[in-house]
Amino acid sequence: MAAEQQVRAGRAKRLPRAVRERQILDAAVDVFSRLGFHAASMDEISEVAGISKPMLYAYLGSKEELFTACTRRESARLMEAIATGVEVDRAADVQLWTGLRAFFGFVGEHRASWLVLHRQATSQGGPFAAELAELRGRAIGLVAELVARAAVEAGVPGTGERDAESMAAALVGAGESLADWWLDHPDEPSGVVAARLMNLVWMGFGDLVDGRVWHPGSPE
Amino acid sequence: MAAEQQVRAGRAKRLPRAVRERQILDAAVDVFSRLGFHAASMDEISEVAGISKPMLYAYLGSKEELFTACTRRESARLMEAIATGVEVDRAADVQLWTGLRAFFGFVGEHRASWLVLHRQATSQGGPFAAELAELRGRAIGLVAELVARAAVEAGVPGTGERDAESMAAALVGAGESLADWWLDHPDEPSGVVAARLMNLVWMGFGDLVDGRVWHPGSPE
Repeated sequence: MAAEQQVRAGRAKRLPRAVRERQILDAAVDVFSRLGFHAASMDEISEVAGISKPMLYAYLGSKEELFTACTRRESARLMEAIATGVEVDRAADVQLWTGLRAFFGFVGEHRASWLVLHRQATSQGGPFAAELAELRGRAIGLVAELVARAAVEAGVPGTGERDAESMAAALVGAGESLADWWLDHPDEPSGVVAARLMNLVWMGFGDLVDGRVWHPGSPE
Repeated sequence: MAAEQQVRAGRAKRLPRAVRERQILDAAVDVFSRLGFHAASMDEISEVAGISKPMLYAYLGSKEELFTACTRRESARLMEAIATGVEVDRAADVQLWTGLRAFFGFVGEHRASWLVLHRQATSQGGPFAAELAELRGRAIGLVAELVARAAVEAGVPGTGERDAESMAAALVGAGESLADWWLDHPDEPSGVVAARLMNLVWMGFGDLVDGRVWHPGSPE
């Protein structure tokens, strides 16, 4: 027993800082997503992370700082998932579709991340809401670039920066709101949810009412 | 002077409670929208309302209660403006257009209301975020009914409750996010902003990229 403890302690000591931090953040996202910011305790997070409380504070600071570190990491992962997923050299509809798939794919696979990032951060307000607003701003900027590029490629006349930016704001808000709705209807498959938003923003209600629907395999 | 004060006091006393409360809420929305919840003081609100601080507390309670009363009144006004604006017996596109016009018309005319309702309530979190979530839920329910009715009228097959509700969630999120963007670009005319969202959700990017745009006078 004593020998095993020694081995464990030795192994624990050898863990690089990055690995320790990842363990802590994984545990924190799990606990925050289940209990919310207020009810989550550093005791529970340290237990789930398998790390002592003093170590926890030493690594990532107070509960507020830990929550901020969680929202930062999860937002970076989300943005990376979308950036990786979007097939930028394809036709505009494929770009949009791959982007939506990546977004809803991430949310579906990392519900705890989305809960912390979106719902918990919103319900906390203050600095967390400011973080979230900053993330939204970056997402809108990214989507606005895609929209502007698609408009240029398609030769749409008179699509100014403001048109692209406001369309992007609407699209990001729609995605966010639909992902939030999805949290309460978790049995819906990711592809179905993504296809609904694709149909709404690519085809529009006008086409849908006329029975025209967008399919992944549709000709452009 | 003394006589005038007496007259004023007499007039003040005769004001019905509803009128007093409206004065207070008008002042509170103004102050909260300019300064935010934290920086706003009951002193300033009582000054703007032209009402003593003890009276202010007697009528609407603490600053938290006053803020909640503001978000409730403004959300009721917003919902009423939309319900009044939507021409429900018209074609689906006219219904959507009149609804969007009413929404952006309200936000444009009552920027302070929208600021308090959306941005301040979001950045405060806690009970205010819960109020806002409740309002969003009601808005989504209302829009989902419209979508479901339009789908039935147009004979769109297989539009289930969940389709309508999730489309409505996306639409409400898009409107909210665009109105939020508009706060930072206040020189854009209300009709332009409304037309952008109309084009996005009625025509869709697919039609826009092909140069098909929705106009208020377009044939159906």
